[in-house]
Amino acid sequence: MTGRSVLTVAPRLVRVRDALRGLRLDALVVSHLPNIRYLTGFSGSAGLLVVTPGACTLLVDFRYATAARALLASQTDLADLLRVVVSVNSFDETLTGLLKQSPAKRIGVEGAHMSVNRFNKLSSSLAAAAPTPLRSPDACPALVPVDRVIEAGRMVKDADEVAAFRAAGRLIADVVPDVVALAQPGRREIEVAADIDQVIRRAGFERPAFETIVAGGPNSALPHARPTGRALREGDGVVLDFGGVYDGYCVDLTRTVQLGDAGQEFRRLFAAVSEAQRAAISAVRPGVQASAIDSAARRALGRYNLEEAFGHATGHGLGIEVHEDPRVGKPTNGLPDTTLEPGMIFTIEPGAYIEGVGGVRIEDDVLVTETGCDVLTAGRG
Amino acid sequence: MTGRSVLTVAPRLVRVRDALRGLRLDALVVSHLPNIRYLTGFSGSAGLLVVTPGACTLLVDFRYATAARALLASQTDLADLLRVVVSVNSFDETLTGLLKQSPAKRIGVEGAHMSVNRFNKLSSSLAAAAPTPLRSPDACPALVPVDRVIEAGRMVKDADEVAAFRAAGRLIADVVPDVVALAQPGRREIEVAADIDQVIRRAGFERPAFETIVAGGPNSALPHARPTGRALREGDGVVLDFGGVYDGYCVDLTRTVQLGDAGQEFRRLFAAVSEAQRAAISAVRPGVQASAIDSAARRALGRYNLEEAFGHATGHGLGIEVHEDPRVGKPTNGLPDTTLEPGMIFTIEPGAYIEGVGGVRIEDDVLVTETGCDVLTAGRG
Repeated sequence: MTGRSVLTVAPRLVRVRDALRGLRLDALVVSHLPNIRYLTGFSGSAGLLVVTPGACTLLVDFRYATAARALLASQTDLADLLRVVVSVNSFDETLTGLLKQSPAKRIGVEGAHMSVNRFNKLSSSLAAAAPTPLRSPDACPALVPVDRVIEAGRMVKDADEVAAFRAAGRLIADVVPDVVALAQPGRREIEVAADIDQVIRRAGFERPAFETIVAGGPNSALPHARPTGRALREGDGVVLDFGGVYDGYCVDLTRTVQLGDAGQEFRRLFAAVSEAQRAAISAVRPGVQASAIDSAARRALGRYNLEEAFGHATGHGLGIEVHEDPRVGKPTNGLPDTTLEPGMIFTIEPGAYIEGVGGVRIEDDVLVTETGCDVLTAGRG
Repeated sequence: MTGRSVLTVAPRLVRVRDALRGLRLDALVVSHLPNIRYLTGFSGSAGLLVVTPGACTLLVDFRYATAARALLASQTDLADLLRVVVSVNSFDETLTGLLKQSPAKRIGVEGAHMSVNRFNKLSSSLAAAAPTPLRSPDACPALVPVDRVIEAGRMVKDADEVAAFRAAGRLIADVVPDVVALAQPGRREIEVAADIDQVIRRAGFERPAFETIVAGGPNSALPHARPTGRALREGDGVVLDFGGVYDGYCVDLTRTVQLGDAGQEFRRLFAAVSEAQRAAISAVRPGVQASAIDSAARRALGRYNLEEAFGHATGHGLGIEVHEDPRVGKPTNGLPDTTLEPGMIFTIEPGAYIEGVGGVRIEDDVLVTETGCDVLTAGRG
């Protein structure tokens, strides 16, 4: 059910439990599965976690009862914090029953993940479940949407997570030669993508971290192209974007290669994107804003008049999910910027795309250190 | 970007547009990506669709601008209905701008899919964006959470979808012998799972429809086990649960096999689950409640005193998503039951699981016909 990550989940759960008071919450309902996994090690496809100052409860359904109990049996410090309840009815019915028996009044829910329908239904059930004398508006238990309570903690990786990422980064860097060799004239993009997935699994990853991208020739101008039935040709530039899940954590890598000679314009794009990537990596250190990393890449592309050809963000955080905080992009209305701290791990993946011509993207994963950053996916030798 | 499915999307979009009046909505914002794909053929990883009686607008970001325009260029009847807007700011900023220019007052959003945070932020932006004379509570544009407007339509497949499912069902049934042959004593579950994924791709599927399950011996007692490093052994029962995406649609199949002789208890479970599956399939016809199919399976298991060993639902709808409506399970408080109609497609997958012993699950996909059902995944010959 879990790998190494279970070793350090108990302190994470304690941190969130202890943060409730500062948030003026009597309880926090965690519904986002990657957050449940981060806090408990439980990696099933359904579940609900209720954190209160006194006790933490993991609700699972019949399918995961055995796995959840085995998780507690393997971890004494977790078993002291957490109990497992097997939900016979729907999770929300069981949750309402639990909350009804508790004195909790202000109950936090994950506003970025809970649907508005579920929020409204749960709110009604809680109001209906309150004992009659309490049914005045301010005495009723109330759901309070909160934001990024657990995600903010997930941004800074702990020692076990860093160790997993170092191993995963080496592993994915080591398969680059094999992956590049798969892209050959005459082979269809989807065939190459399927072979890359096999290479990733054979290397020791649990599975690919996302749908592998193989985009050749004109298709390389689509930053998020799905592999097609198009056969690669001599003279193509080919974007290869692939990743793996190792010990529950996602790494993500892109290389752009040419089959034979992809021409002058390809080389210009490649030089510009390489320079942008180096500039961005050089800018990474604690105390810097994530948006400044993005600006460094854009400035470099600007020197090639390619700023307009780069329409996505420079990078994204990595962790249990392949897209996490921090966002490494332009400062955008309503989206948070992040001050970098040691232990943050994210991609640096500038690109340049010209419709009808092609595109180049180069991506590595970096770990913010005390003084700068380590490139986790750097090639060896 | 899309396969055959694009041929029939225009009538679907027209149906939703024409349904707005009955829902007393001036606009519907579609944020759930499988619903956007169903209505437009657009299969990118980000986008937003706004349906109004006058016009439909697909918001995409830079990455998908080319793909979205190509979609319209390939489809005259769709191009008459739909325009593409490339969103430079966040989707929600662009959406607010669009809605501000429209006379829409009651704006439906997909309450089962939109997060409560997004709902609250959008509501505030719309209120702030309203011209000052309109800022009285009832004159302001209001977001109205609606439920299953598009999902209800997706339950009944149209002719093109049925054709895709018939082809996909044959394809997945045809790989069963190859898949079963991969489960051999001495091979680890994760190795077998990776090989199954290769078989699925080679058969012509775009990709596996979900994470393939290979669960041997005691692991087979976990209904949703992930493949582990455990090597299969002589005498194991092995659950093999796998699926593929074909032309955008998901099929899902489970076989349970024994390596050598898995013993008396395995055979008892197998006989019971087979009987339960036959009973459930026999019960499928138009006009019957989905919950009655589930009851038929449970009654059969009850004759073996195995009702308690079957903790999940008998089946789930299939389509663009691998879990869709209808739910084929016990009547549950708050979850809708469904009257079966011709054109519905769902799995029938009863199981029986005994901790410490093992489990059996058998799954096929059925299409409701005018008189009963067709088993889409029936073996040939």
